[in-house]
Amino acid sequence: MRTRPLKVALLGCGVVGSEVARIMTTHADDLAARIGAPVELAGVAVRRPSKVREGISADLVTTDATALVKRGDIDVVVEVIGGIEPARTLITTAFEHGASVVSANKALLAQDGAALHAAAEEHGRDLYYEAAVAGAIPLIRPLRESLAGDKVNRVLGIVNGTTNFILDKMDSTGAGYQEALDEATALGYAEADPTADVEGFDAAAKAAILAGIAFHTRVRLDDVYREGMTEVTAADFASAREMGCTIKLLAICERAADGESVTARVHPAMIPLSHPLASVRGAYNAVFVESDASGQLMFYGPGAGGAPTASAVLGDLVAVCRNRLSGATGPGESAYAQLPVSPMGEVVTCYHISLDVADKPGVLAQVATVFAEHGVSIDTVRQQGKDGEASLVVVTHRASDAALSGTVEALRKLDTVRGVASIMRVEGE
Amino acid sequence: MRTRPLKVALLGCGVVGSEVARIMTTHADDLAARIGAPVELAGVAVRRPSKVREGISADLVTTDATALVKRGDIDVVVEVIGGIEPARTLITTAFEHGASVVSANKALLAQDGAALHAAAEEHGRDLYYEAAVAGAIPLIRPLRESLAGDKVNRVLGIVNGTTNFILDKMDSTGAGYQEALDEATALGYAEADPTADVEGFDAAAKAAILAGIAFHTRVRLDDVYREGMTEVTAADFASAREMGCTIKLLAICERAADGESVTARVHPAMIPLSHPLASVRGAYNAVFVESDASGQLMFYGPGAGGAPTASAVLGDLVAVCRNRLSGATGPGESAYAQLPVSPMGEVVTCYHISLDVADKPGVLAQVATVFAEHGVSIDTVRQQGKDGEASLVVVTHRASDAALSGTVEALRKLDTVRGVASIMRVEGE
Repeated sequence: MRTRPLKVALLGCGVVGSEVARIMTTHADDLAARIGAPVELAGVAVRRPSKVREGISADLVTTDATALVKRGDIDVVVEVIGGIEPARTLITTAFEHGASVVSANKALLAQDGAALHAAAEEHGRDLYYEAAVAGAIPLIRPLRESLAGDKVNRVLGIVNGTTNFILDKMDSTGAGYQEALDEATALGYAEADPTADVEGFDAAAKAAILAGIAFHTRVRLDDVYREGMTEVTAADFASAREMGCTIKLLAICERAADGESVTARVHPAMIPLSHPLASVRGAYNAVFVESDASGQLMFYGPGAGGAPTASAVLGDLVAVCRNRLSGATGPGESAYAQLPVSPMGEVVTCYHISLDVADKPGVLAQVATVFAEHGVSIDTVRQQGKDGEASLVVVTHRASDAALSGTVEALRKLDTVRGVASIMRVEGE
Repeated sequence: MRTRPLKVALLGCGVVGSEVARIMTTHADDLAARIGAPVELAGVAVRRPSKVREGISADLVTTDATALVKRGDIDVVVEVIGGIEPARTLITTAFEHGASVVSANKALLAQDGAALHAAAEEHGRDLYYEAAVAGAIPLIRPLRESLAGDKVNRVLGIVNGTTNFILDKMDSTGAGYQEALDEATALGYAEADPTADVEGFDAAAKAAILAGIAFHTRVRLDDVYREGMTEVTAADFASAREMGCTIKLLAICERAADGESVTARVHPAMIPLSHPLASVRGAYNAVFVESDASGQLMFYGPGAGGAPTASAVLGDLVAVCRNRLSGATGPGESAYAQLPVSPMGEVVTCYHISLDVADKPGVLAQVATVFAEHGVSIDTVRQQGKDGEASLVVVTHRASDAALSGTVEALRKLDTVRGVASIMRVEGE
């Protein structure tokens, strides 16, 4: 084994960073044996140097992250600051000064992944980011390495623990959205401002990263259709249950049937209770991958948290250190397929539509005609009278999102349709 | 991209081999883009050259596997023959002649993994074998790379599809073992001689491989305790259901509580219906991994079959080809921890014991005394009278296998105990 240590600069020492530092210290011998050389924490860049950090020597702590990554003797920079800046500049500076980078930064990877990969390649360095998607769950490595000889057709995942906690709570207790959110906040599963989670921004960033790797195509954050889950109601869960379904916020990356384009989207959807994703409880994450040869795979585990995310970071750290010792680099960005990313209108799926209609003869015929005119085939219809009005629930066969939108627009114009109570996609059938 | 192709020799062209050849042909452009150079099928060694092999040029087919691996221009040998010989000699010959190796051979890896890894290292070549455990499910790579910065404490898996199909059938239909086996045979899930599957030999080989990687310790096939599932009865399933459990054939690799030793075993066990492994149906495989930092992860998918296994082989092929281009090798055997492998007697778990006893006063006291004398603490007891005799079901707290064996031996000597109807371990609590 090499005795001269590899030097690691840690950028950020919050929930994840402090766990990374802790494990680097407590498991130093194991890491050294697995890498083939010791690793040394050479510096820790933080915003508040006064905060006591157990187990980290005060000599290592600095507020000057830029100077740290420019030192020139750093082998690997671990970026767990999050957000776009200063993380982006620090990462590119790290490459310029000869370091490889391990990052847990989903927002940055989703927004500027291509530029960062290019910078890594230009300088012959590694950029690894297993921790950016679904915490501890090995997902990036299986997708870009284990399935490198296969053709992935679909990635269907629960990639946000906060929203899964909320939806699971609504499902199991009958609670409304606000009540479940309040509980998630009280238990620390939701942040004070939950927007990034509940509006699907976090999941959309992960969808962009997953779609890019799965389809060997550059997928930007803007390419991902996004719909949050704040409007999911207890009534939606009741409807779902009548269909033998539950509701999950899903990130869905799909190759079109003709193989010539891809789509990526995040929205709440009904999935059958028999689907493995339906039983993913609490704040857990799980990702279902469908490929030509391997069929259906699922990866399940904790999607967030200090220690689980640190586990993913350290797995990458070992790989990147090994690469440095052998003088090689791991797989970089693979975007050779360059498939076009289609807009949401071209997505094909099934829909569950709940309408409030007048309870009089001919209404069903009118509604059915509108579906037919838009080429949307109906699977089942259920009508229920209540107080002179009626509720009409239509579940469609597979249709394009554009055709469905056109249908709903036309339905709203019918005198007999008082309102469209809810529209929800049905996935995983 | 390099234009000179990497040359691949395929040893074996059965269910898996023919799928490997097919995908190498149909996905040649994708493989080339992902590797950075084209890959060419340079030869296919088979036993019966007369058999028509769709899509494979007759010029490539040979019965002389040894000459093929000795050619000297082969970059990667893909071994999908199975069994110990001639696979072992062919693999070492391949290393001697400069090739890296991708193998799907669990029996060989479990028996001679150490020697093969040593040969690969001696010649500076790769030995990859993702396909050897749980078919398409990425498991070897996540364990040895993604979790390289973590400390794995337990691997609990359903790693044999045939036996899971049989047990699932017994559970869902109430069928007996023979009836379920017959159906598995008729559907092609079980081989004409099912011994390797139903007696747990196949799962034991996988357990040895998984334990070795998980604990960075050499675990030989002989180190794995093995008990088949041919004696599981419909009555056992009924007992399991009363406890809110089902029965699975599990491969269990554990680090002892003090961290100083490990165990590996294969046997049928009851697991709670709430455990994610309980809902793994049919011939699917799933492996649950518990680690210090990442917590609980699960990997799920098809554990066998031509195309899924080929997917795993090709993922390895891409990695090994990339390594050759960069002049590096991937992670080799990691056995630095050298933890002792403890015998079965030291395994600690819970037990479900069903006794036929005389239905008279004092029997329960006698039985309870025997448990106490052996230091086995009782969790629950259920007694049921039938025709003058009684059935006594005892579920214990955690105890060592040796203590439990001693208890059972002493119970058999009691006049009031007519017989021990069944003993089954309870896992996953």
